[in-house]
Amino acid sequence: MKVLVIGANGQVGKHLVKFIQESDDLEAKAMIRKEEQASYFKDLGAETVVVDLEDDPDTIAKAFEGVDAVVFTAGSGPNTGPDKTMLIDLDAAVKTIEASKATGVNRYIMISSFDTTREKIQEAPPSFAPYVVAKHYADDWLRKTDLDYTIIHPGRLTNEEGSGQVKAAEEVERGEIPREDVAKVILASLKNDSTIGKEFQVVGGTDKVEDAIAGL
Amino acid sequence: MKVLVIGANGQVGKHLVKFIQESDDLEAKAMIRKEEQASYFKDLGAETVVVDLEDDPDTIAKAFEGVDAVVFTAGSGPNTGPDKTMLIDLDAAVKTIEASKATGVNRYIMISSFDTTREKIQEAPPSFAPYVVAKHYADDWLRKTDLDYTIIHPGRLTNEEGSGQVKAAEEVERGEIPREDVAKVILASLKNDSTIGKEFQVVGGTDKVEDAIAGL
Repeated sequence: MKVLVIGANGQVGKHLVKFIQESDDLEAKAMIRKEEQASYFKDLGAETVVVDLEDDPDTIAKAFEGVDAVVFTAGSGPNTGPDKTMLIDLDAAVKTIEASKATGVNRYIMISSFDTTREKIQEAPPSFAPYVVAKHYADDWLRKTDLDYTIIHPGRLTNEEGSGQVKAAEEVERGEIPREDVAKVILASLKNDSTIGKEFQVVGGTDKVEDAIAGL
Repeated sequence: MKVLVIGANGQVGKHLVKFIQESDDLEAKAMIRKEEQASYFKDLGAETVVVDLEDDPDTIAKAFEGVDAVVFTAGSGPNTGPDKTMLIDLDAAVKTIEASKATGVNRYIMISSFDTTREKIQEAPPSFAPYVVAKHYADDWLRKTDLDYTIIHPGRLTNEEGSGQVKAAEEVERGEIPREDVAKVILASLKNDSTIGKEFQVVGGTDKVEDAIAGL
């Protein structure tokens, strides 16, 4: 199964492509923004495709050729303003969902934010609310499709080394999770079709990732 | 027919409330953000309701009591950043659409931007693109409801005195239109149920507003 990793050059994305390449039954196609970012992925033996997510849907859809599943782990990042939140976290997400539909790539895994509910929009501080709105509508768009989707809501991301142990459920207490473990959760979700049509929150915990995902 | 004007204290909104109050068969309920804004509307004999559009949907929905139609002419304005674009032009619009559904107020007129298509998002300059995205998704949300909607796409707004003459069609050549004439177009749309389920662009022209709207 070939997995298009959108936002491959992000920290979760880099871990994920590595894990995918180490899996017997999976291979990665890393979607990156600049050719200069390719060497890390080429060293892992992964295919790369250069796409600007602000491009039009048809151009983006070309990257979906030969792909069996999509993971959206792109984000505008903490150093850009809410203009990029609108263009990447909302609009680019929707464009890739539409590209999945258009190209018949039915499996779509969205890396969302921990809480993207209406309640969260209302209680979020002004600096964070636009991001929650963007993720809220992107998640909503995906839920309303017929795609085989999974929406993953990780807790606060850290750069600590992953433990491979998490707590995952529809709702869990807010907490942290290493980016490496988020990548493991995505990998387990890709390998476990029982996650289709589901969404869940995930933080650091005491269950092995594979068991936590299988038990959802 | 009582019309809830959302964004009443904006320039289009102020003209609109005045025209509504001058109409025999219509009365306005002006939704404003601050009590200090009420006097203009009270002088016109219009009801007012103070609502912060960043509030939760239930609070917003209370303003829909006793109302027969809604006009959304709120906007984050040129002096706020894309954070407010996300929270007002997209999220507040959606909240008011949902409030219309929840309270059974079926008539909803959206004042959109001249061109909110995917093509426009792609070609817009970076400073303008987030606004187009916000209006794109707000329009999309409304189209997907069962509400009796009309989406009005005015050209570039000016503060010139209205001429009462416009050109309106599904697509017209880009041009300017005085805010006073936009308000007249909204009034004519409220009075003409043949605009239900339609959307149109409108700029200054040579047709009387009433004729232009009736001829859509």
